[in-house]
Amino acid sequence: SKTLRIGLIPADGIGREVIPAARQAIEALGSTIPKTEFIDLDAGFEYFQKHGKALPEETLQTKTDTITWNNGSSPSTKVAGYSSPIVALRKAMDLYANIRPVVGVSASGKPSVDLVVVRENTECLYVKQEKLEKDSNGKQVAKATRVITENASRRIGEMAFKLAAARPRKHLTIIHKSNVLSITDGLFRESVRDVSKGWPDVQVAEQLVDSAVYKLFREPSVFDVMVAPNLYGDILSDAAAALVGSLGVVPSVNAGDDFVIGEPVHGSAPDIAGQNKANPIASIRSAAMMLRHLGYEDAALRIEKAVDTVLIEATTLTPDLGGKATTQQCKYQGERIETLL
Amino acid sequence: SKTLRIGLIPADGIGREVIPAARQAIEALGSTIPKTEFIDLDAGFEYFQKHGKALPEETLQTKTDTITWNNGSSPSTKVAGYSSPIVALRKAMDLYANIRPVVGVSASGKPSVDLVVVRENTECLYVKQEKLEKDSNGKQVAKATRVITENASRRIGEMAFKLAAARPRKHLTIIHKSNVLSITDGLFRESVRDVSKGWPDVQVAEQLVDSAVYKLFREPSVFDVMVAPNLYGDILSDAAAALVGSLGVVPSVNAGDDFVIGEPVHGSAPDIAGQNKANPIASIRSAAMMLRHLGYEDAALRIEKAVDTVLIEATTLTPDLGGKATTQQCKYQGERIETLL
Ligand SMILES: CC(C)[C@H](C(=O)O)[C@@H](O)C(=O)O
Ligand SMILES: CC(C)[C@H](C(=O)O)[C@@H](O)C(=O)O
Repeated sequence: SKTLRIGLIPADGIGREVIPAARQAIEALGSTIPKTEFIDLDAGFEYFQKHGKALPEETLQTKTDTITWNNGSSPSTKVAGYSSPIVALRKAMDLYANIRPVVGVSASGKPSVDLVVVRENTECLYVKQEKLEKDSNGKQVAKATRVITENASRRIGEMAFKLAAARPRKHLTIIHKSNVLSITDGLFRESVRDVSKGWPDVQVAEQLVDSAVYKLFREPSVFDVMVAPNLYGDILSDAAAALVGSLGVVPSVNAGDDFVIGEPVHGSAPDIAGQNKANPIASIRSAAMMLRHLGYEDAALRIEKAVDTVLIEATTLTPDLGGKATTQQCKYQGERIETLL
Repeated sequence: SKTLRIGLIPADGIGREVIPAARQAIEALGSTIPKTEFIDLDAGFEYFQKHGKALPEETLQTKTDTITWNNGSSPSTKVAGYSSPIVALRKAMDLYANIRPVVGVSASGKPSVDLVVVRENTECLYVKQEKLEKDSNGKQVAKATRVITENASRRIGEMAFKLAAARPRKHLTIIHKSNVLSITDGLFRESVRDVSKGWPDVQVAEQLVDSAVYKLFREPSVFDVMVAPNLYGDILSDAAAALVGSLGVVPSVNAGDDFVIGEPVHGSAPDIAGQNKANPIASIRSAAMMLRHLGYEDAALRIEKAVDTVLIEATTLTPDLGGKATTQQCKYQGERIETLL
């Protein structure tokens, strides 16, 4: 019988606390899923400091069915030569879609916020084509290339329409800034519009990225699925996360045609690392999305229902949600989630 | 005696309603400022449709001391060849700083939100160096260049530190995304950090743009002055505007060493244009900022106090703030502001 090989990359900071919580939730599923094997994989800032690279070849080569990962971004701003390995990993595995559902949970059952950010995950400024030059006075001039292709825009468009078509509202907003970037964002917009022809049931709208952020805060209910180029999607998903109380509850998957990596939207949060108070929900929900992507819908639903129950009970919440629960000990959310599974 | 020549560019949509309101407020100042002369100037989308260009040479050539402008962005997403002329105007006049104060007004006198976004206004992706290519399969590939220079970053840094030093908290947050854009955003960050040496009284922090948007919504009080490259500044200022109830109250100036253009942060709002319900406050406040920049501090303060009084009284508010007042008629805010001046 099949064994599900799940890679774990806790990377840095609170990753060491929340990724084990995700593992625990998966283990608690018992026979809902095949036998699992967990494989610890290296990557991140601490690894970089010891070994001079952030993403070891071995991590890329180890065969797994899926990975759950915590991104180790924060310290990178302070160290030359380091940049977050998740970007390289997305590209190496062609995980072209970053799917970030933002759902507020309420006891009434009708969520206050319920939207999905579908972020293109391989291009835009994330191609990292940068160079440093000098002007005629010897002053520094830095340049970066932003790449938007018809192929990648259509491909993320298809993914977004598929998701939108499966939701009750069937509504998709294309995010761009084509009033300034008429060629690159123009191509993104046109390509997604062109894909829309294959999805006559889905209603299409568009919004400039600046006003989209404004609208997100003023009137989030206008949005159902949002599809965006890489950088706008990065910013929009953090903005949307603010609507549901904490980044600590927002999951994502980096999905390609052949592979998926679950990733909480939050980072390594060095300020609270090692204090046993990080919220494991984003990672646990990312594990659920990962399992759904692999075809284990029942398992995903069980985890998601357990998480919703914990949020509605509101008795074992971590400090980011105003509670006093710790990540691993005593009234540990994961334990409660485990009993619910 | 000197005459103050003030150019007016209502451009499109609600610009035709709010720019005249700004003019009225300036006129009501009476002898606080020199004799004024107002000069109507063309630009924008409607002009483009009639004449094939968005920014006529005459508008650039006409000599004025300052301009108040309403940007006509919205329709541009739908029409090939049109892109908002404000970007060209900023560049032509080297208006390198876009200063956007976001202040919530409360009866207690202690504003709920009180921050300033200082946005670099001439480079980043706004250099508009874009091209369209084909890949080997004939598919479209669009590229844009993002430019960040040491000079422009230092110059906006100086402006931001000067502003921060004059505020009670003396705190500046550098916004970037150098965990991905290590060279371009790295240069922005380093250049502003280097400028900080000349401002030992100002406390410096930094924040990645995605978490900055999150923080803006969760904990806006952490920010005092924020300095950002062009595109991040565009997005951040809209995000901040959502904190004070409406984009309709947020002003800005585009400032260079020799010239200043006042500009409400909102656009032409075609959905409410011609309905006499646009909020004139953003334009009126932009006029005040413009006058301050020209050295008329008393005039600026008088306008700002009148606006604050209108907001605190809360009896003549436009619909965006939950009121029923119109822009120009009956319980017109401008009239109330005029009586207060
Ligand atoms: C860590 C960083 C490179 C990453 C990104 O910008 O994609 C993070 O912010 C995210 O949203 O996953
Ligand atoms: C109209 C548009 C080009 C402009 C910008 O992006 O700068 C607007 O959004 C602004 O913020 O002034």
